[in-house]
Amino acid sequence: MSRVSRRTLLTGGVGLAGLGVGAAAVGAGREMSAPQPEASTLPFYGRHQSGIVTPMQTHASYIGIDLLDKADHQALHGILRMWSQDAANLTQGKPGFSDTEPELATSPARLSMTVGLGPGAFTSAALAARRPSWLAPLPAFAIDRLQEQWGQTDLVVLVASDDPMSLAHAVRAVIAPVRRRTRLRWVQQGFHHGRNLFGQVDGTVQPADDRHDDLVWNDGAEQKWLAGGTSLVLRRIAMNMDTWEALDRRGRELSTGRTLDNGAPLTGVDEHDEPVFTATRGGVPVIPESSHIARAHRRSDREQFLRRPYSYDSPPDSGLIFATYQRDPLVQYVPVQQRLSDHDALNEWTTPIGSAVYAMLPGPKEYLGETLFA
Amino acid sequence: MSRVSRRTLLTGGVGLAGLGVGAAAVGAGREMSAPQPEASTLPFYGRHQSGIVTPMQTHASYIGIDLLDKADHQALHGILRMWSQDAANLTQGKPGFSDTEPELATSPARLSMTVGLGPGAFTSAALAARRPSWLAPLPAFAIDRLQEQWGQTDLVVLVASDDPMSLAHAVRAVIAPVRRRTRLRWVQQGFHHGRNLFGQVDGTVQPADDRHDDLVWNDGAEQKWLAGGTSLVLRRIAMNMDTWEALDRRGRELSTGRTLDNGAPLTGVDEHDEPVFTATRGGVPVIPESSHIARAHRRSDREQFLRRPYSYDSPPDSGLIFATYQRDPLVQYVPVQQRLSDHDALNEWTTPIGSAVYAMLPGPKEYLGETLFA
Ligand code: HEM
Ligand code: HEM
Repeated sequence: MSRVSRRTLLTGGVGLAGLGVGAAAVGAGREMSAPQPEASTLPFYGRHQSGIVTPMQTHASYIGIDLLDKADHQALHGILRMWSQDAANLTQGKPGFSDTEPELATSPARLSMTVGLGPGAFTSAALAARRPSWLAPLPAFAIDRLQEQWGQTDLVVLVASDDPMSLAHAVRAVIAPVRRRTRLRWVQQGFHHGRNLFGQVDGTVQPADDRHDDLVWNDGAEQKWLAGGTSLVLRRIAMNMDTWEALDRRGRELSTGRTLDNGAPLTGVDEHDEPVFTATRGGVPVIPESSHIARAHRRSDREQFLRRPYSYDSPPDSGLIFATYQRDPLVQYVPVQQRLSDHDALNEWTTPIGSAVYAMLPGPKEYLGETLFA
Repeated sequence: MSRVSRRTLLTGGVGLAGLGVGAAAVGAGREMSAPQPEASTLPFYGRHQSGIVTPMQTHASYIGIDLLDKADHQALHGILRMWSQDAANLTQGKPGFSDTEPELATSPARLSMTVGLGPGAFTSAALAARRPSWLAPLPAFAIDRLQEQWGQTDLVVLVASDDPMSLAHAVRAVIAPVRRRTRLRWVQQGFHHGRNLFGQVDGTVQPADDRHDDLVWNDGAEQKWLAGGTSLVLRRIAMNMDTWEALDRRGRELSTGRTLDNGAPLTGVDEHDEPVFTATRGGVPVIPESSHIARAHRRSDREQFLRRPYSYDSPPDSGLIFATYQRDPLVQYVPVQQRLSDHDALNEWTTPIGSAVYAMLPGPKEYLGETLFA
């Protein structure tokens, strides 16, 4: 596309965005089309990136990308500026900078585009000293059967939306303009409606909202530039539906420690009742000690993190794109993961096949990564 | 899973289905979950299968399956009975027969499960004479670059829903119980919100509703058992986003014959205006003769079919799962496909990589395929 036509498009940008309502109206009148999702938007600028503590969108894609020249921090700088420009527009329902399907941008449906850096992004001399100390592969766990194809990358972008077309369009805006300088390693597509493919209510226990500053957001103590950012642990966990379904309903509830019908702890009635791990019946714990929630439950205040579980389904393979966000993965996440690796009833039906860690950037004033390059 | 526990589950079936409302209520109150889609249902029984002239659901998966023993028509009979039982329940928001995640069944969100047979399903002596004459691979087209991995299968099931979790759950109910007697060849997952990945409004021109009996539904003249059924042509068409985006906006509209902003023909203002193919400006046709709609537009009343275009997106590969339904593909579909193969401006950016044809069963009184086996 030539500069001229690109400019024509941009000049038309506001007009096109304005078409959002018209397009939706057309949609409603059409014979075969489903109702269009509303064009609601999440902020792009701010102290934190959207897409982290945001109520989960129904669709998400994590995109793993490697830099071709890891020593060239100017290339990284350019990529982050380009993504910022596109994300600033797309998340607000406006076409991206070199957007050639501007109509696909008019219904963002809570689109968020959230960017993070893997260890490889800090290779250049200019950035080496700015790598957070925890930004490294997790320790190996005995349960891991990691596949290189789902491994660590230099960059990650989480694109999420309530509309799969808005998502597909934004994914392309992430990948296409950086292709000459990067290699696309994977796209992990997931969906979430409250339950995972085992039928379990998933995502119940989370850090309280008023603990986000303390448990989720980086305070800049180690790396000043990262204040307002966080860390992402991204695990791809295969779930064996066949063997899980060979287990009866009660067996599944005992393995989880919660009921299947509404996700209440086995000691409670409602989903959000506090589990009582000390309760016994006939001398036997009501929530088995080997159950997932008994093993995963925090043993100290530090052992907390935000979990955003998306399901993936590419029959016959399915499972969770298990993402957690926390200030420090070594202090908060690893002890829990180690405990689950040592013993967790669910391990019989679940297998970690991918693992990666990222520093998620602070929210931008002007562009993503501005404090890293300052 | 033992017979006993299966029965326990089934006994609990009604109660579990009744939980739908409760589960949705829980969902609404949860911190991180998006609003649950309503539990609306489509009929399973009737003269026609749902999922064909039904307004398109937002998510769909076409599942291609081969029979292990094509000569064993009893196996086919058993598979169709099993699918019928599950579909009769799942589409109505009730757990399937051996459903071990019954909670995932409570929100069907217009779930439909639509079954069809490929040529291989008619191999047995008992069924050979019941194969419709048009049920065979399409003729080869010069534009085809067909890949075996997306080729013809013995069976197809279209599962569609407005909720991706309801869909994933139903896909599993199709695949899991028949695994010992079949081979899963492919699952083609798509989504549709009115536009395709080229940004075009897609799916505008369709046979009028009052022509369905004539143009879509089989009348049983050749094969009595197929009355109320239809044919499916399923083409997987890769779309080259890179070269398409290198084209300017005007070039794209001229290639299509319609505007990008609302899909109106270049001779009109609104999406549903009739294109005027004879209109010229300065002696030149306003809708180029080489444009997709000029080439695709019917040259006779017979050349009409229902198009249900779903987008697929597995970066860097994307395109259309292009499905059409018509009484007779040779009479209605093939002449149009031949004309497009001979010349269509869009061919420069699109490549058919998969092709298959199916006889879609009539709607069931008791179970799918009942007239075939009668
Ligand atoms: C496929 C793998 C997994 C599945 C299916 C799964 C499923 C669940 C379910 C159903 C719950 C109860 C509801 C809730 O609080 O969300 C839960 C809780 C939890 N899970 Fe997992 N989980 C998996 C992997 C993990 C991993 C890898 C970790 C961390 C290393 C983890 C950490 C937790 C924590 C901390 C809780 C809350 C425990 C509590 O305090 O009650 N889970 N999980
Ligand atoms: C990736 C491939 C294709 C794309 C992107 C595409 C796109 C479109 C678009 C945007 C329209 C105009 C709006 C509408 O009526 O839906 C259209 C119309 C149409 N297409 Fe396609 N199409 C493709 C392949 C095909 C194929 C393979 C066939 C049949 C062999 C076909 C048959 C038609 C017909 C019959 C119309 C309506 C023409 C009229 O009477 O105005 N298309 N297509």
